[in-house]
Amino acid sequence: MATCKLDVIDGGGVTSAAGFAAAGIHAGFRQNPNRYDLALVVADDVCPVAGVFTQNVFCAAPVKRNRRVLSHHPGNPAEAYGCVKAVIVNSGIANAATGKAGDEAAQAEGDMVSQALGCAPDEVLVCSTGVIGVQLPTEPFETGIPAAVSLLSRDSGADAASAIMTTDTHPKEFAVSFSGAGLGYEGCTFTVGGMAKGSGMIMPNMATMIAVLTTDAPVEPDVLWEACKQAADVSFNKVTVDSDTSTNDTCILMASGAAAPEAAPFAKGSPALAAFQEALTHVCIQLAKMMARDGEGSTRLVNVNVTGAASAEDADLAARAIANSPLVKTAIAGRDANWGRIAAAAGKSGAAFAQEDVDIQIMGIPVCAGGLALDFDEDEALRRFEEVEIDIDVDLGAGPFATTVWTCDLTHDYVSINADYRS
Amino acid sequence: MATCKLDVIDGGGVTSAAGFAAAGIHAGFRQNPNRYDLALVVADDVCPVAGVFTQNVFCAAPVKRNRRVLSHHPGNPAEAYGCVKAVIVNSGIANAATGKAGDEAAQAEGDMVSQALGCAPDEVLVCSTGVIGVQLPTEPFETGIPAAVSLLSRDSGADAASAIMTTDTHPKEFAVSFSGAGLGYEGCTFTVGGMAKGSGMIMPNMATMIAVLTTDAPVEPDVLWEACKQAADVSFNKVTVDSDTSTNDTCILMASGAAAPEAAPFAKGSPALAAFQEALTHVCIQLAKMMARDGEGSTRLVNVNVTGAASAEDADLAARAIANSPLVKTAIAGRDANWGRIAAAAGKSGAAFAQEDVDIQIMGIPVCAGGLALDFDEDEALRRFEEVEIDIDVDLGAGPFATTVWTCDLTHDYVSINADYRS
Repeated sequence: MATCKLDVIDGGGVTSAAGFAAAGIHAGFRQNPNRYDLALVVADDVCPVAGVFTQNVFCAAPVKRNRRVLSHHPGNPAEAYGCVKAVIVNSGIANAATGKAGDEAAQAEGDMVSQALGCAPDEVLVCSTGVIGVQLPTEPFETGIPAAVSLLSRDSGADAASAIMTTDTHPKEFAVSFSGAGLGYEGCTFTVGGMAKGSGMIMPNMATMIAVLTTDAPVEPDVLWEACKQAADVSFNKVTVDSDTSTNDTCILMASGAAAPEAAPFAKGSPALAAFQEALTHVCIQLAKMMARDGEGSTRLVNVNVTGAASAEDADLAARAIANSPLVKTAIAGRDANWGRIAAAAGKSGAAFAQEDVDIQIMGIPVCAGGLALDFDEDEALRRFEEVEIDIDVDLGAGPFATTVWTCDLTHDYVSINADYRS
Repeated sequence: MATCKLDVIDGGGVTSAAGFAAAGIHAGFRQNPNRYDLALVVADDVCPVAGVFTQNVFCAAPVKRNRRVLSHHPGNPAEAYGCVKAVIVNSGIANAATGKAGDEAAQAEGDMVSQALGCAPDEVLVCSTGVIGVQLPTEPFETGIPAAVSLLSRDSGADAASAIMTTDTHPKEFAVSFSGAGLGYEGCTFTVGGMAKGSGMIMPNMATMIAVLTTDAPVEPDVLWEACKQAADVSFNKVTVDSDTSTNDTCILMASGAAAPEAAPFAKGSPALAAFQEALTHVCIQLAKMMARDGEGSTRLVNVNVTGAASAEDADLAARAIANSPLVKTAIAGRDANWGRIAAAAGKSGAAFAQEDVDIQIMGIPVCAGGLALDFDEDEALRRFEEVEIDIDVDLGAGPFATTVWTCDLTHDYVSINADYRS
């Protein structure tokens, strides 16, 4: 892929792209009045949107509603793109496993936003994250939505990012820009940014990974969806904290086109679209790594890099098996360069390879070559384990395919958080 | 299936069936002289044997050797059955990821046993369990094998069961008998017994589940293999502690025929073979449940019972996803009837069902019906969580298929054991 120059926007987030405003407030889904629990992201004008939603059979009411809303967009068999003006997110209650009453609450919520903004109900997407199996009250929306609308601003991206947090220890925002020069969009600068929370089923009772992304690039809905899916596949879908896919997992991308309002949309196969894809993917990967690093009880981000796989699927199988292995994750918590667990996880993954072709490095230290143990400096390994980011490199020696999956270590705190959560 | 009456043999194990002797000794694979580390199970005469071995690409040297030995048996494409006189097991070192030197050690070990017993090298199977990536010394065999042979006895099954333990907290043995009356074997009583250790990749550095089973029923090698595979599929293969399949996982079944030495072997489709299958499956399930209950740091055995699945594969997918979910397992450690985690794990498993058809019970308490939360008595749930065996019943409402998978809870001790193991 040709690479374009990306400029990281300091403090950037969901309102870095032109044409968007946001707000984050306390509406009352949570007891604590100091915790924001309602976020609103609004485009100046109705604009293209794409969504990637959880495949979990137990998908939540807002996910069902978004799919239905997007299915009304013409020529949209995937129920995954269309045009909207706003996305609303509440935290505290996931509106999952809530049946018909939950569906009605999600519908009412969308209706209230559309009335407050003067758009159609189908021009609003809704997201929820929080406890499963509890009905979503609509009262907090009645006062919260007008309050949030009155606070909408380009300066309030951080408030929105804070409002979607559940057990996250900090808000997650990122944005980059790139120049349109040489891409057929001279004089234009395009921005892609977003906010995110959680990670897969990192917190299933506080269900969900949610990402809301915005760009001011001009991209048509169907093209936007391809880009969104492609970026999510190599970022959010490569994060695994406890191997689960939540009931609410959602990634939404809106494109205002405000950076080049008179220009033609990015065409399929164009250099401009390639640059956009690169910027979007970078933002998604940064947000995904923030999620993995913030896994419950985690002390370290773990990059599982698999190379030499016989197929892309094999690379993913092996990397995911290693990243999901509680034995690998506890070893990292214990600062133990225990490559036997890594080898065994790869070996049972279903990926095709021969054990005598496998090389493994942990934090750059070769620990296994040709499937056999290497002598290594345990003290040096212990020192390198002090880093907050741990690299595991596994070369399967079976082909040219590679991937990276992100996870975190498995600590006592993970057990405490998840064993004691409801009590 | 017709059910026959099984009599549990008090204190029964690998030598309960007629025609077998065993020994367990300290040979020197471990430092601690008080810990047995070498087990030998010997048939009075060379007899039919069947083996089910790990599918892990990183399979250990003894697994490779056993497959090769069994492949010499005529008409045996599966490399999984034949005739042998003895099985030797060492604990402490797994002889996994040890390359050519490891293959030679496994070969030498088999040769030494064959010399000591006066049988052919191909009439010995070898198993190892312990640390991965460390070469297996042959010196302990040189003194240990003659010592073990001199101690062979029908009373030493418990010694053998103790010698194969690694991080197991207690030896695992079980045996049953059934009458041949009405099965075409009047006056005969048949016994099936065995010993086992570990559980899947419950302890990957102390690699392995190993089970050695014996029977005095007359069963031909190919029929024995079908029976062994069928029993393992619904017992050992349904145990999951941390979703891993070890480098050494092995289940071996020997059939002396000593309970009916003059009789014809159990024929395919016969009532006698059906009774044998039932007895074997019962023994394997009991041993499998002992393994799950003894999972590292575990305080409870968890029975995940899935019913109403659209296919056998779907039942297995859903049950395994629930049993492997760290979030479900930590909830049980925390005595939390958190059905949302169970629902979400089933939902992402790939099994086909609709959320509005799902019913869930925890310890017999209905907590979810038609995919929706039910009010339940939390105090009563807490009381029932005091049991050492926890039942999770999930009815997917999608078909007639069912299965049970066994696991344990995920506790602080699991993290301690696995994070601190090598240090």
